[in-house]
Amino acid sequence: MVKVNDNYLKLPGSYLFSTVGRKQREYQAAHPQAKVIRLSIGDVTQPLAPAILDALHKAVDEMGNAETFRGYAPDLGYEFLRNVIAEQDYKAKGCDISADEIFVSDGAKSDSANIQEIFSLDNKIAVGDPVYPVYVDSNAMAGRTGSYDKNTETWSNVIYMPCTAANHFAPEIPKETPDLIYLCFPNNPTGATVSKTQLQEWVDYANKVGAVIIYDAAYEAYISEPDVPHSIYECEGARTCAIELRSFSKNAGFTGVRLGFTVVPKDLKAEGVALHGLWARRHGTKYNGAPYIIQRAGEAVYSPEGRDQLKKQVAYYMNNAKYIYDGLKEAGYTVSGGVNAPYIWLETPNGMTSWEFFDYLLEHANVVGTPGSGFGPSGEHYFRLTAFGSYENTVEAVDRIKAMKI
Amino acid sequence: MVKVNDNYLKLPGSYLFSTVGRKQREYQAAHPQAKVIRLSIGDVTQPLAPAILDALHKAVDEMGNAETFRGYAPDLGYEFLRNVIAEQDYKAKGCDISADEIFVSDGAKSDSANIQEIFSLDNKIAVGDPVYPVYVDSNAMAGRTGSYDKNTETWSNVIYMPCTAANHFAPEIPKETPDLIYLCFPNNPTGATVSKTQLQEWVDYANKVGAVIIYDAAYEAYISEPDVPHSIYECEGARTCAIELRSFSKNAGFTGVRLGFTVVPKDLKAEGVALHGLWARRHGTKYNGAPYIIQRAGEAVYSPEGRDQLKKQVAYYMNNAKYIYDGLKEAGYTVSGGVNAPYIWLETPNGMTSWEFFDYLLEHANVVGTPGSGFGPSGEHYFRLTAFGSYENTVEAVDRIKAMKI
Repeated sequence: MVKVNDNYLKLPGSYLFSTVGRKQREYQAAHPQAKVIRLSIGDVTQPLAPAILDALHKAVDEMGNAETFRGYAPDLGYEFLRNVIAEQDYKAKGCDISADEIFVSDGAKSDSANIQEIFSLDNKIAVGDPVYPVYVDSNAMAGRTGSYDKNTETWSNVIYMPCTAANHFAPEIPKETPDLIYLCFPNNPTGATVSKTQLQEWVDYANKVGAVIIYDAAYEAYISEPDVPHSIYECEGARTCAIELRSFSKNAGFTGVRLGFTVVPKDLKAEGVALHGLWARRHGTKYNGAPYIIQRAGEAVYSPEGRDQLKKQVAYYMNNAKYIYDGLKEAGYTVSGGVNAPYIWLETPNGMTSWEFFDYLLEHANVVGTPGSGFGPSGEHYFRLTAFGSYENTVEAVDRIKAMKI
Repeated sequence: MVKVNDNYLKLPGSYLFSTVGRKQREYQAAHPQAKVIRLSIGDVTQPLAPAILDALHKAVDEMGNAETFRGYAPDLGYEFLRNVIAEQDYKAKGCDISADEIFVSDGAKSDSANIQEIFSLDNKIAVGDPVYPVYVDSNAMAGRTGSYDKNTETWSNVIYMPCTAANHFAPEIPKETPDLIYLCFPNNPTGATVSKTQLQEWVDYANKVGAVIIYDAAYEAYISEPDVPHSIYECEGARTCAIELRSFSKNAGFTGVRLGFTVVPKDLKAEGVALHGLWARRHGTKYNGAPYIIQRAGEAVYSPEGRDQLKKQVAYYMNNAKYIYDGLKEAGYTVSGGVNAPYIWLETPNGMTSWEFFDYLLEHANVVGTPGSGFGPSGEHYFRLTAFGSYENTVEAVDRIKAMKI
C-alpha cells in the first residue's frame, strides 16, 4: 500500500507567493473595476533587452538548421556560458572560480530547493529570519526541520537567526552550531546587506565549525555601495565552505526565461567527500540542462551591449525603489532596504499584522504587497514592496499609499 | 559538522549516459581521424519543425515588448498549453483528463526523478529490468533502495521485473507486492510495448493492492500498431492509481529545448491524501516553470501545421529504425524493438558482455551505442541502438556493423 511523504503534510498553508496570488485573484474577481497594482512577487516587468532578444532569435534560427541544431546540453551547461560567467562574475573580480565549478540551471529557485539533497537528513540548518521561504520549505519537505508549531510559526529543528531593526536586518552567528547555513545578500525580503568584513566572519566561522554556507546572491546586480561583496568568494577561505547561487531573473529580467547557476568549488568537502561530485551526480541524473537558446541568451547578458542595456534596466528598477522608499518615508512609514536591493521593507502601521496590512492595502489602495510574516516569524509586522513594477505603476501605487488613511 | 547524503555514495559509477559520453570522447581524442557515429543516447538530430520555429520567434518578440512581456509563469504552466494537451492528447482519445490535472515541466527526466519525492521513503518500488536508469537512481539517492550488490548489480530493496526474450520484454506482475510501480511503454531501452488488455491488468492490479503506477509514455508518438495504448488513462480505473509522464523531447525534437508534463488525476489518493495537491506543492515550491517561449513552442506542436510536420519527423526516424532493424537481422543479429519505438534492442554476439560489445563496436565500426547492462541486470548481453541519427549516418553505421567481423 503506497504511503505519502508525510513531511509535506506538516507544511503550513501553501507556498507564500501562491497564496498572495490567489488572494489577489479573488479580490480582482470580486472587484472587477479595481485597477490592482502588484508590488508583491519579485517579478520583473521590463521587456528583455535588445542584445538578449537578438541572441534568442539567432539561437532559434540555429535550432532550425541540421548543422547547427543542438540536442541535449552538456551536463554542467555549455562552455560558452560557463566560461563567460567564470571570467566576468569571478576572475575579473578577483575570485578564484573556474568554469568547471559552475553548474548552469533553470534558476536559483530550483537550485536553492534542490541543493539540500546532497546533504544528510541529519544536518541542522540555520536561516535568517525573515528570508526567502524556499530554504526552509525544501528542508521541511525532506524531513530535516522537525515539527511545526502553529503558534510560534517555527519548526522545532531549525536555527532561526532573527534579522531585526536592532541588528540592521543582518543575522548574527547563532549560539547553537548549525551544519548548513543559508545566507541571502542582498537579502530577500529586507533588502539588507553585509559588509565584506561581516561576511568574512561568517566564512571563518563556517570553516572553524565545519559548516557549509549556501550563499544566495540572486540580487547582487543591485548592489550600489562599494563595501558590499558581490560574491562570497571575495572572502578568503570561502572555497572550502561555501556554495553560491546566482540568478538571471533579476539582473536580466529572466523570471519568465529561466536561467541560473550554482558554484560548487572543488575544494569544498564534507566528511572528506567533494560536494562538487555529488552535485554533478544530482545534476546529471535528475536534470537535463537549461535550453540551448536560453543559455545563448545568458551569454548575451555578458556581451558589451547586453551589459550596457542591463545596467540601465537595473537603474530603472532602482529608481522605482528610491521612489517607494522616499514616498513611504514621507508618508510616515518606517522603511529600510531599497539601496542595494530592489526590495523595500516597511513596518506595518498601527500594530497591524502583516496579513492584516496586506488586506488593508489591497482594499484601500488596490496595491498588492507581500506580508513579512510569510518570510519567517521575525517578519511579522513587516511588509515587502518590490521595485519591479513599471515606473508609472510604481508612482501610482506609492501615491495611493500616501493618500491612504492609516 | 556537515554530513553528506551517503545514499549518493552507494551509487555505482556515474550516470549511464555520462559514462557513455566520456568513453566516446576518450576514444575520439585517441583517434582524431575516426568518424565516430553516435547511435547511443536518445538524442534527436533533425532541426526543429518550421511551425515550432515560428512560435519561438513570435514568443521572443513578445518578450521584447512591455505589453506582451511575461514574467513568472503560472504554477502548473500556461493554460494555452495545458488546454491543448488535455484536448488533443486526452479528451480526443477518450481519456478523462482535464487541463488542471496537467503539470508542465522542463522534461520527463526531471519529472521521473522528482516524482518519488511526494512518496514516503518506506515505499518499495518495482521497476522493469532493463529500464531507463533514472527511476532507480533517483530512488537510490533518496534512500529507498537499500544496499547495492556489485556482483548482481542490484539493490536489495528494489523489486526487479525481468523483461527478457521469454516474456517479449514485457514485465510480469511480481510475486512481492510493490507500493510504487514504474512502467515505461513504449519501453526505453527495449522498444517493447504492451497491449491495452495487458496494461489494464496492471491498472486492475495497482487498484487492488493500493499501489501507484508511474507510467512513462515519453515515446508514445512512435506507436504504429493499433492495439498499443498511447496513454494509461485509456484503461478503466487508471485515474485512481496512475501518474503519467510525457515528453516533447522525442515527438517534437525538444531534447535541447526542454519541455514535458506530468498528469496527476485529482482522484488519485494515497492514505486518503490527494497526490495532486502534493505534486502541486512540490511544483510550486521547488520549481519555477518552463520558459514562456518554450511553452509557446509546445503549443505549436499541437497546431495543424506542427502536427503535420512532426508526423513526418517521426516517420523519418522510424525509417531509420527499420533500416537498423533489417540490417542487423540480415547480418545475423537477434533483434527486437523498432516498430513502436525508436530503439533497436539486440543481443550481443558471441556471448560478449554489453560493455565488451560497446568497446568492440566503437573500435571496429566507430559506432557508439548503449550497453544494455546499464539499464539493469537483465540487460546484460544486450545492446541499444537509437534511430535518432540522420538517415545518412544511420545507413553508414549499419553498413559498418554489417561489414564488421563478429
